[in-house]
Parts: sequence; structure tokens; C-alpha cells
Amino acid sequence: MNHPTEHHALSQRRPFPAALLDALKQQFAERVTTAQAVREHHGRDESPFDPQLPDAVVFARSTEEVQAIVGLCAEHDVPIIPYGNGSSLEGHLLAVQGGISIDLSEMNRVVSINAEDLTATVQPGISRKQLNEALKDTGLFFPIDPGADASIGGMSATRASGTNAVRYGSMRENVLALTVVTADGRVIRTGTRARKSSAGYDLTRLFVGSEGTLGVITEITVRLYPQPEAISAAVCAFPSMGDAVRAVIETIQMGVPIARVEFVDALAVRAINRHSNLSLREAPMLFFEFHGTESGVKEQAQTVQDIVAENRGEDFEWATRPEDRSRLWNARHSAYFAMLQLKPGCRAVTTDVCVPISRLAECVEETEKDLRGSYLPSPIVGHVGDGNFHVAMLLDPGKPEELEEAERINRRIVARALAMGGTCTGEHGVGLHKMGFMIDEHGADAIAVMRAIKQALDPKNLMNPGKIFAFEG
Amino acid sequence: MNHPTEHHALSQRRPFPAALLDALKQQFAERVTTAQAVREHHGRDESPFDPQLPDAVVFARSTEEVQAIVGLCAEHDVPIIPYGNGSSLEGHLLAVQGGISIDLSEMNRVVSINAEDLTATVQPGISRKQLNEALKDTGLFFPIDPGADASIGGMSATRASGTNAVRYGSMRENVLALTVVTADGRVIRTGTRARKSSAGYDLTRLFVGSEGTLGVITEITVRLYPQPEAISAAVCAFPSMGDAVRAVIETIQMGVPIARVEFVDALAVRAINRHSNLSLREAPMLFFEFHGTESGVKEQAQTVQDIVAENRGEDFEWATRPEDRSRLWNARHSAYFAMLQLKPGCRAVTTDVCVPISRLAECVEETEKDLRGSYLPSPIVGHVGDGNFHVAMLLDPGKPEELEEAERINRRIVARALAMGGTCTGEHGVGLHKMGFMIDEHGADAIAVMRAIKQALDPKNLMNPGKIFAFEG
Repeated sequence: MNHPTEHHALSQRRPFPAALLDALKQQFAERVTTAQAVREHHGRDESPFDPQLPDAVVFARSTEEVQAIVGLCAEHDVPIIPYGNGSSLEGHLLAVQGGISIDLSEMNRVVSINAEDLTATVQPGISRKQLNEALKDTGLFFPIDPGADASIGGMSATRASGTNAVRYGSMRENVLALTVVTADGRVIRTGTRARKSSAGYDLTRLFVGSEGTLGVITEITVRLYPQPEAISAAVCAFPSMGDAVRAVIETIQMGVPIARVEFVDALAVRAINRHSNLSLREAPMLFFEFHGTESGVKEQAQTVQDIVAENRGEDFEWATRPEDRSRLWNARHSAYFAMLQLKPGCRAVTTDVCVPISRLAECVEETEKDLRGSYLPSPIVGHVGDGNFHVAMLLDPGKPEELEEAERINRRIVARALAMGGTCTGEHGVGLHKMGFMIDEHGADAIAVMRAIKQALDPKNLMNPGKIFAFEG
Repeated sequence: MNHPTEHHALSQRRPFPAALLDALKQQFAERVTTAQAVREHHGRDESPFDPQLPDAVVFARSTEEVQAIVGLCAEHDVPIIPYGNGSSLEGHLLAVQGGISIDLSEMNRVVSINAEDLTATVQPGISRKQLNEALKDTGLFFPIDPGADASIGGMSATRASGTNAVRYGSMRENVLALTVVTADGRVIRTGTRARKSSAGYDLTRLFVGSEGTLGVITEITVRLYPQPEAISAAVCAFPSMGDAVRAVIETIQMGVPIARVEFVDALAVRAINRHSNLSLREAPMLFFEFHGTESGVKEQAQTVQDIVAENRGEDFEWATRPEDRSRLWNARHSAYFAMLQLKPGCRAVTTDVCVPISRLAECVEETEKDLRGSYLPSPIVGHVGDGNFHVAMLLDPGKPEELEEAERINRRIVARALAMGGTCTGEHGVGLHKMGFMIDEHGADAIAVMRAIKQALDPKNLMNPGKIFAFEG
């Protein structure tokens, strides 16, 4: 499937000088490669777009090495795309103008864990599960959990969130400090390990969510949280999506400090059941998790059970044993891959709108109507406590009309979310796929401000060019 | 008292053309003034620096009016300083290069309260107390509470926090969206009312904390929170500051969701007792507040009482009645003014470091030693749950040697905090007073990135010039 900018100047490949390759080989030897298989692996992500191959891939091992690569690329006007785990969903990693993919997977160390300060500093290639594995004996955990086992660098770059964001926030709230290699080859440190600061412009938050377009993140300091004393999880079926969502809205409005509340529609439940060998009722469901003290968790659960009952919830079922809980959440995290299996050989166009919670039921119900009018199988899941949900429209990559149908629905969903005061992307990022909505969402003047920043920090447009902005500056 | 840049190009006054004044008068009539008294009021803040008067003050009533003023100033190369309630502590409001002070106090309306979404949109001149007054019947509240009854616009501009930040975050976490008039006279809208977004650069967080140097904030959408079902407050004395701080560190590390935990040293308690007619024990004290359900609050309080007992806390005393609680917190909020009264006619140089919580006891104890070696009365208060504390060094504004002594101590405290991985300002902002520490804290390269952003968004350096950056670009 072609990406939206295929015939556009944004996707014009730039020359790749042999001198650059020579220089890289001199420094990186076998850690720089132009092998087709490696380039293919690095020229795609989990989006439905056809791969766009980088000219070469370099496996970096340190901030200094990243700095050296950026310096060489700048010298030769060659684009740079940082690569973590390849799990982004919007085409972020496609080398639409060619260039060097900097693979950061070998930079996957925990630099330090400051258990007393509830912080950890890590390299960008470490995955969220690897980080939590490293934290195992500390009594702490890192809550941000996109579906995939994404890298912390990639999660920072896309301002990712996941199922825990309703309680713990997204990467926006949980990145304290960064080391970044900028386009001109400087190494900067943004932020500190202090919990707050008013010392100048918030560069940390500027680089979080910048999708590799302003620099390469080479170190990340994140917030950690004490493992809750008690955890309980539950699932509950509802007669309709609207009922489920209304239960969530009331829960949020009452200020229940719920840790997770996830919506899964009947089709998504079917996918999950098949993929994870579960036997959940194939109806609109909510998955809940409560964190707190023993009595706090009981109290939260009771409040939520009452709200659920008033919203026609049925069969509130507990997952009390840790293994049941982790089975449930593993199943939820596998939903994307489970859904892909509903239609053999398919790929998914995923929507990612996020709206103010008061509009969520209406937004979801209108979306359901859109989907009923379409022939594409389109399961829905959502981090509904945040007002964020995803439709995965499953399509045959060989059939352009299916892509057009998916994009038609996507445009309707985004337009509705924006009209409701929401955003076109709650957590996946812009990449190639949401570029066309940026002016609709922010207005031309705010985009001009973003462009001015991009232009100031990367005047040669070397850092992941052709992303975020749907036009050349 | 002169501010640190008095002999510097940064404080060179620019020409103020009569044509600009005429143009402003034409549009704003009696709402533009050059009256000495008004200019004096707008040329100072709560910092110890001598006033630096703007050439004129304009009282704006709408975003469009701010836009018109910015446009005229840009035409005439005249600086612009937004003015809220005048309560900043670091010289932010001083017109070091002259120019126009835009008084936003008449823009103090609540634009909308979206109770269901837990958000409110307000004009910048509304104060935090006015906002909470407007929220009274909604069951919601806005938690951020610097000592003064600051304007929400000013709090956004300085990335303010206060006593509730340990639980609810600072302005960084609680501003969802902004309307901003940029230096080139555009009106942009940053962010949305959705709780999260990954749609491009985080302009909201860039303008929050930019201290008027990138644009004028004319509308702010903030997060609100349900009034907790139960609140309880308590005070407790400790034999030493170190003991008090260690109790706080343990509380944070155990993940107790404490709403407020404030440190007040013996001298600050004396000031508060006198000013607010209380009879607190004149010893190092912690003020606590717990928010939650009835049983949740009891449980938190019990946990904290246990921690306090293990750290030699004495006389854990409850303020159970709402009037006792508000008396206690009003007293805490008046601490700055109470402390000023310890030394008649004095002004205060205030420190504002914030360190990783594990270093807080050491940082505070070393600071105590510094203060014991000084002749200046210097009470200490702190938002210790965040690792943030303030020393108010009380000095005679007529005695330059007292200023030098205060700045000597300030430099020691900042250097120590930076060495511990902290920041020179947790919540007050840079203004004039912390400019000299910015390179020490961030490094020259990160400051160069901040400068590049400033240069890109305000190439003529019209927006609150001479602040944040200690040198011209």
C-alpha cells in the first residue's frame, strides 16, 4: 500500500553519496550495512504502508556514535531516521527521502535506577518490558504500556501512552529528562531529575512527541511508581458500546483513581478470544484494573461496580489471581495482532482519535454507525478513560479500494473528533498518516509556529524529513 | 535594589516613539496611560529589584486587542510585557528595556466550565482564587496554588506550582490548551481539550514557562479535579529539619498519595504565628493534607503518622474542622508576607531550588549550615514532597552588602542543587534573578537550542526582552 505522500516532493529521495558510506564504514565497519534484508526491515513499521528503504542502516552503541553519524549525515545532506523497535503505527520509520536509519537496539541498557527518587535513566533501545524486568526487585514499575513492546526511545518520540495513562499519564508526564543529539551535532541534556522546574523553555516536552524530526533521543530519564500494595482486575459486558462508555465517563467524573479502564467491542473480543485462547463473552466489554491499598482497591471496585450496574453492565467478573490478571492484560496488549488475524493477510488502518470525555459516548456511537455502513471488518478498542479509542480497519493490501474505504472512514472519524474539541491522534503520533489533519486540528498559524521551530533546529531538514508536516517549509 | 543586569546591554532602554503612543491612544483612549503611578505599579513585582518602568501601560480586554497592541509594538520595535497580578518573585515584570506593559487584569472572565470534562477555559487575568470561587457550585476545584493569589496567565507563564503539586502536578501538567498572540501578531491555539494528544510539537508546554518571552497568553484551558469526598489536615513538629524531611522522603517513596506536605522551619513558624495569630510550636514543622474517600484519608493519615513517629515527629495535631484547615493553609499561603514582617522595611531574596527527593535532606541540612554562617534572617519553607524549598533571605534594600550576602548564599544553594541533579528554580521561574544559572543548569548547547527557538519565534526580541537569557542572541 502506498503512503499518502507518494507523488509528493516530500517523498523525493535524496542523493546518497558513496563518500558518506565510506566514512561510515571506516568508523562502524560491519555495523553499517546496505544489505537489502536489513534495509527492508528498517524501512517499514506496523503501519499498512509499503516499505520505503533507507540507503543504509547503522547500529549505534553510544551517544557519541549517534553524534558522529549525525555529523557525517549533515556534512552530506543525508536524512537520519532513528529506529527503535519498529512498532510505530503511522509510517514514522519509512525512509521517504532515503537516508540513514540509525538502529538504536544495541543501546538498550539501563543507565541507572534511582529507586529512592522513583526515576530511571535508560538508553533509547530498551523496551518497556525490558525496563520493567530490570525494575523487578526494586518494588517499582514503569507504567506506560502501548500495545507493542515498544522501545522507550520510540515511545518518547511519539508521546506514547497505553492502558495505564488514565492513572499515570502518558510519556508527556513521565519523561523527566532527555539526552538528545541535535541536527547540528550537539549533544544536549534537557530537564533534570527534579520532579519539577521553571528554568526556561521546556525542551523535554518539545522533544517528546517530535517523532525524530528535531533530533535523536539517546538517553531518557523516566518516572517510576511504587508497585501498588494491592491490584485487582475485572471484566464486565454491556448491551451496547454506549452503555460501556457512559459507565467510564461517570467513573472518571467521580474521580475514582482507576488504574486502567479499557473498552473492547464484540468483534475485538472475538479476536482476542481466538488469539489468546480466552472465552470472554463476545459483547462490548470493559476491562478494569484497580491499584491501591487493600481497602482502597475494594472501595474503588465497589464504586465502579455500582456505576456499572446503573449503566446496564452485566457479569462483573473478577480476575483475582495474578496469573489471570496478566493473562487478561496480555490478551488486551495483543489485541492489535489478534485483530489482524480476523482477516488473513490483511493490514490495518488504525484510527486514534481522542476527545473530551463528555463527548466520548456520542463519538463512539457515531463511529459505530459509520462502521455499520462499511464492508471492512473494523473492531474497536479504546483507552476510554482518556477519551481515546482505536478502530482497526482490516483491509487487503492488494485492493486499493479497501484502502480508500478505510481512509474515507478515518477522515469522518477525525473530522468528528476535531469538531468535538479533540485530537486526530491520542497516542500513535502523526507520522505519514495524520499529516493531512494537522492544519485542521491546530490551524495554519500554529502549524507555522511548529514549522518555525523545525526550521530553527533543523534548517537542512535532515531529521526524519517528510513526517509531521504535509508540506515543505 | 538594582537587578543583576543593570549595567548590561540587556537593560538598555529602547526608544519609545510618540507615534506608537498616538496610535495606542486612538484605539484604547483612556485605557492607555503613561501616568507615573500606573507605570510604577507595572514596573515592579514582588522581587527585591528596584522598579523599571514601562513607557506606557495598556489595559486590554480581548485577544483581538492584545493582537492589535502586539502589532503596533512590532511596527515600532517596542518591547511588550504581559502583566497579570504582579506577584512574580524574580523580576519578570520589570521593563528593563522599556516598552508597553499589557495589563490583562480586565481579561478575568471564566470563558467556560466543562464540568463533565473536568476542564475550564479562562482569560489570563483571573486569579486562582477567583477561579475556585467560580467553581464553587460544580463540585470541582483547581489545585495549583502559589503563595500569592496569582493570575492564571502569570502562573502559566512561569510554570507555577504550589502546595498541591505533590499530588496534582504543576501548571506543566494542568494546562491543556492555550490561546497565544505571537510576536508576529498571529493568534494561535495550542492543544485541545482532549486529555492527551500526539499531534505534533507540544506548543502548549513550550509556552507554559516561557515567561512572556515567546508570546502573550490570552486564554488558558486547565484541568479541574473533583472535590475530594474527605479532607483532613495535620501539623507535626520535629526536632530537626533533617528529621522532618526524612519523614517526607519516606512518605513519597511509599507512594502515599498525599495531597500536600509542606515544611516550615522554626523561624518561618514564628513569622506565621505572628502574622496569622496562630500558636504553632516554633520548631521545624510539617503541614499535611490528605484527600480521598473517608477511609482512604484515614488510611493515608495512619501510614504517615507511623512514618512520622519513626522520624522523631512529635505532637501530630489534627485540623479537622474546615475552618481550622483553611486557617492553617491561609497561614501557609501568607508565609512570604509573614516572613517579610520579621524585619521591618525588608525585602526578600528568595531561593527556589528543587532536587531529587533522595538528596533533599542533605540539601536542606547543608543549606541550614550556610544560613547559620550568615547574619541575615532567613526562614525556610518548602514544598518538600516535590523536593522544592525556599529560603527567604530578609535584607535591608538600602544596604548593598546585604544583597551581596544574600546572593552569595543563593549561589551556594543553587550550585549545590545543580550538583545534586536538581534545578535552580522549581516554580518561580527565571526572570532576571536566575538568568545567571541557566548555562550551569542546562549547558551552553541546550541554551543555544532555547535561544534558537526564541530567535525563530521572536526575531526582533520584542516579547519581554532581557529575561531568561543572560546575553543577547
